[in-house]
Amino acid sequence: MNDRDFFDLLNNRMDEGRFLCVGLDPVGDKMPTVLRAGNTPGGMFVRFCIDIIDATCEDVAAYKPNIAFFESYGSDGIKALEEVCAYLRRQFPEIPIILDAKRGDIGNTNSGYVALAFEELKVDAITLHPYLGREAMTPFLQYEDKGLIFLAKTSNSGSGEFQDLLVGNTPTPLWLHVGRGIAQQWNEHGNCALVIGATYPEELDRARKIIGDNMLFLVPGIGAQGGDLEAAAAAARNSEGRGVLFNSSRGIIYASNGDDFAEAAGKKAESVNAQIRAALAAGL
Amino acid sequence: MNDRDFFDLLNNRMDEGRFLCVGLDPVGDKMPTVLRAGNTPGGMFVRFCIDIIDATCEDVAAYKPNIAFFESYGSDGIKALEEVCAYLRRQFPEIPIILDAKRGDIGNTNSGYVALAFEELKVDAITLHPYLGREAMTPFLQYEDKGLIFLAKTSNSGSGEFQDLLVGNTPTPLWLHVGRGIAQQWNEHGNCALVIGATYPEELDRARKIIGDNMLFLVPGIGAQGGDLEAAAAAARNSEGRGVLFNSSRGIIYASNGDDFAEAAGKKAESVNAQIRAALAAGL
Repeated sequence: MNDRDFFDLLNNRMDEGRFLCVGLDPVGDKMPTVLRAGNTPGGMFVRFCIDIIDATCEDVAAYKPNIAFFESYGSDGIKALEEVCAYLRRQFPEIPIILDAKRGDIGNTNSGYVALAFEELKVDAITLHPYLGREAMTPFLQYEDKGLIFLAKTSNSGSGEFQDLLVGNTPTPLWLHVGRGIAQQWNEHGNCALVIGATYPEELDRARKIIGDNMLFLVPGIGAQGGDLEAAAAAARNSEGRGVLFNSSRGIIYASNGDDFAEAAGKKAESVNAQIRAALAAGL
Repeated sequence: MNDRDFFDLLNNRMDEGRFLCVGLDPVGDKMPTVLRAGNTPGGMFVRFCIDIIDATCEDVAAYKPNIAFFESYGSDGIKALEEVCAYLRRQFPEIPIILDAKRGDIGNTNSGYVALAFEELKVDAITLHPYLGREAMTPFLQYEDKGLIFLAKTSNSGSGEFQDLLVGNTPTPLWLHVGRGIAQQWNEHGNCALVIGATYPEELDRARKIIGDNMLFLVPGIGAQGGDLEAAAAAARNSEGRGVLFNSSRGIIYASNGDDFAEAAGKKAESVNAQIRAALAAGL
């Protein structure tokens, strides 16, 4: 199918000491002045993302463009996302791309999202909503070399409204039931992973203890959302100090809004990656 | 904000005897031969959807393009969706447009999806995942004149895996807890609605009894998915025989794959709408 395997690429990056996922979340009114002249929003986004990528590539394990920010400008924005993904695959084939899309529909319809992610954009992984169940997600699950990263416990302050509801005979929060079900029943190809927010270190700890060492956790929320990196790393890591991919988006890419935006992002990525590396190793 | 109000438009259509929502789900290899010559996939989709719309407009309450099918061709597909929505607004301003997108992210990110739906495509309603909770969905919920249609019990055969889990002190299936919570706590602007599949008539009945007369149910699954229209209508309608919008996609738009595809879709829409009207009125 493909000579790229998400987990192989990611593990290679981690073997080399890179643990940071940089979220590419371009927002029109946050674009540096230097990029504004004569560009469509999509043109600005391409220039911005490429500059950010060139400046941060030494310190990242993965890039995670969130399609919502590109879609906000319709087809012009999606064209920009296509160009950013093509640039990444061409210039940095060693860095995996995670499409943050949070998709999830019935099976017949998911085939459309599969085509977007794996045929058009040719990304290595995608984030997904689990609510419709395994049967609906079959079009994704059959891709053995892709990462399928399901929302379990999201980083937002109101995520508990439904995710913390207790289910089952031994009352378990819904998010943990979902995560455990995915780990035990959806993961026959070893291609599943879970989103659990850095803002919930107790939940990260519980998830690691119950779900075990082999599941990758994508952990957003250490940047602008204010999650405590040290607490989250100690809770989320597996017994080898791995199995966690920390994401920061706004905290990296908007480190400066001046002409030095890319340089500032590069410095921030280097320091955050070093902090993650230290936090994952601390006390092991 | 806008001179279109989703529920006003929809109620006007229903007052005139139109109860069918036609799903616009274009698929490349299902396009009629007559549309293929010289067109990009996006160009084919625009021509196909416009012909379907022109042939079915007399009998529909709403159109529901599912963005997954357009996204499967990347920016070319999104451009086609933009053209289809622009055509609908220009030629048929009296017919509401529901973007079937099943989106749902943290609040900051949902603003991107809001821009796509309500600024770029200018649709009247959107389908959404409830999993992240009300706090995350605030960027959508503040649009008083839009329809925010949340997944409760989806039509697919495997929807029970998580949606039927029992939660709460008086054990209630998750989907019903979600639907009731949205009706009672998220709906201060009266702009929320729920997706409940026609394939689950008992659940439709229970939802109507518990959630009450005032909530609109978008009910897919009466066409290709095989839901029983009579059973679903009797269960889903409110005390006035309303409050339900039945969707059929493949059953209408692929009624024929020959040169007569539009004419066949028109005839099918007329007959299905008549069946829905009869089923909603039966025995009232």
